[in-house]
Amino acid sequence: MAIEIEERVIEFINAHRVARLATADAVGRPAVIPMCYVFDGISFYSAIDQKPKRVAANELQRIRNIRVNPDVALIIDDYSEDWSQLVYVLVHGAAKIIEPNQSMPVEHATAVAALRLKYEQYRSMAIDQNPLIKILPNRVRFWSGVS
Amino acid sequence: MAIEIEERVIEFINAHRVARLATADAVGRPAVIPMCYVFDGISFYSAIDQKPKRVAANELQRIRNIRVNPDVALIIDDYSEDWSQLVYVLVHGAAKIIEPNQSMPVEHATAVAALRLKYEQYRSMAIDQNPLIKILPNRVRFWSGVS
Repeated sequence: MAIEIEERVIEFINAHRVARLATADAVGRPAVIPMCYVFDGISFYSAIDQKPKRVAANELQRIRNIRVNPDVALIIDDYSEDWSQLVYVLVHGAAKIIEPNQSMPVEHATAVAALRLKYEQYRSMAIDQNPLIKILPNRVRFWSGVS
Repeated sequence: MAIEIEERVIEFINAHRVARLATADAVGRPAVIPMCYVFDGISFYSAIDQKPKRVAANELQRIRNIRVNPDVALIIDDYSEDWSQLVYVLVHGAAKIIEPNQSMPVEHATAVAALRLKYEQYRSMAIDQNPLIKILPNRVRFWSGVS
């Protein structure tokens, strides 16, 4: 079930271009990776892109972790040398893998379109043929060094 | 036991100001947080600073997680709109909490001094009276969008 998220937090999320995603494997060993994303006010979607990778999409650590352990956390923040200006949005949620052309083709296609709208870089990549990561937040915390 | 880390990777780590640290709790739920750090070529050290926090140092999620599950991952990266320029250093390691004035007072004091040298912001904070996080890497991966 979707949680309610403040408008200023949604704006902060959508004004940013990168998050760092933490997953953990079946025995609780964490992994972390930069992640581009779109957020529709309810869920995050992230693509598996076509950069040369030594491993296939389904063998990526984050994908393997999510398949065995859907609990994830992601952080969106800017670093500043003025620490009073530090702000972050911390999201805990449940992730799942959405395959192309499977049970939810419209959801997959909509997320791909939104990712290509936000990131020009995806327009020439066949992300539509790859799985997506979907994250439904269950806890969102906005933190500011000022407050 | 310390692993060997390439010189260019050590330089990348030391040229950066912020990492994102992933920890997981006893049941494998991940958490992630921005983290300032120093790296001496063997271990990372990170302070618990004096920013107003609703919780005491020992109740911080990352501290609680490390006490029950020392496996951590951290990433150091810069986001760029030119994705061929993306570079990151991904570290997996074993973390522990180093209390002030306990078994390793010299290690604690040395890390505090190094943190204050790298981050002027710490010079006026009583980080010497707080626990530190120490991370000994067991796997370090340097990734570049160019390669």
